[in-house]
Amino acid sequence: MNVEPPEVPKRRPGGRSARVRKAVLDAALTSLLTDGFERVSVAAIAAEAGVAESTVYRRWATKSSLVAAAIGELAASENPTPNTGSLEQDLRVVLNQILAVIGRPEIERLVRALAALGDDVPGIAEARAEFFATRVAGMRDILDRAVARGEIREGADAVEVLETLVAPAYLRLLMTGLPLDRALARRAVRAARDVAGQDPARVP
Amino acid sequence: MNVEPPEVPKRRPGGRSARVRKAVLDAALTSLLTDGFERVSVAAIAAEAGVAESTVYRRWATKSSLVAAAIGELAASENPTPNTGSLEQDLRVVLNQILAVIGRPEIERLVRALAALGDDVPGIAEARAEFFATRVAGMRDILDRAVARGEIREGADAVEVLETLVAPAYLRLLMTGLPLDRALARRAVRAARDVAGQDPARVP
Repeated sequence: MNVEPPEVPKRRPGGRSARVRKAVLDAALTSLLTDGFERVSVAAIAAEAGVAESTVYRRWATKSSLVAAAIGELAASENPTPNTGSLEQDLRVVLNQILAVIGRPEIERLVRALAALGDDVPGIAEARAEFFATRVAGMRDILDRAVARGEIREGADAVEVLETLVAPAYLRLLMTGLPLDRALARRAVRAARDVAGQDPARVP
Repeated sequence: MNVEPPEVPKRRPGGRSARVRKAVLDAALTSLLTDGFERVSVAAIAAEAGVAESTVYRRWATKSSLVAAAIGELAASENPTPNTGSLEQDLRVVLNQILAVIGRPEIERLVRALAALGDDVPGIAEARAEFFATRVAGMRDILDRAVARGEIREGADAVEVLETLVAPAYLRLLMTGLPLDRALARRAVRAARDVAGQDPARVP
């Protein structure tokens, strides 16, 4: 048997590259949660992660792209997209994940800090988009699986479903101070389920 | 004809009392928009309004109740509750009013400042509640009139309808950075209309 030797990979998954990435993003997240968005320093993050500043900049060209990656990492690692076999139950799990996350004081501070920044802060648009991107991708998977199971028809908009599910909770947290209670969660899940689509068997 | 002389009112509407109230709330609002919630000073507001500090404190016992009244005044004066004769059109007008208000840079700053403050800031709960109270009362009127016209049945929850109408816009403004566009407005009006209730003629 003639086996070609594999090319030596420059970056093996789980190797030094992945370890560096994780160390830098962990340090960025800690700095973000402790110091806030505007006081995050790439130099301090590099020192905390035990790498050269140039190593950080080789992967993330700007501070804001690093911050965005750290926020995305937080969303992804703490909140695996559910796959319960039921669209409504998946939606309930996603909302409960989000309520649990924003119920942590250090995350609530980060959310408030993001909300406070005007669109003129450099990199803010990128950070905002990243904040939502992981969630939108997860919602797309949830909807695709619901279509495959025959629960809904194709065509639901993942952004619209996600906004319907989470917007009232953020409005209460950030603006009106109304409670993030079970009645709100029940209602938001129902509304998001309706936006995702009716049962195709019931709709002609 | 025997006409009793009216009792001399202590506070005539439009009299000195109303003028003082308006001057103080205007000054409070200006200070709020210029300096931000945490730097508002009752002494400076009283000076700006041309009244004694004790006059301000006689009406508003705390700085936060004054700030709350000023925010309520802004919401009320700039946004008379619409009465177009159609529930859907009323909802559209309310949303457009809110989009216009938060589209003004100085109001956007105030909204971001309110969102940024943690629940441990003295008076913040009162200010948040006041921020929403005028709108909820207006929505209650809109729904009552729709019931009276036979557009919907009784029982719609004004808070729920209002949250459905405005929450996605605040989520986009404060968190995700997605555009406050016409597609969003159309969708939010439709969703709020659905929450308000179906046409009673069509639902058995």
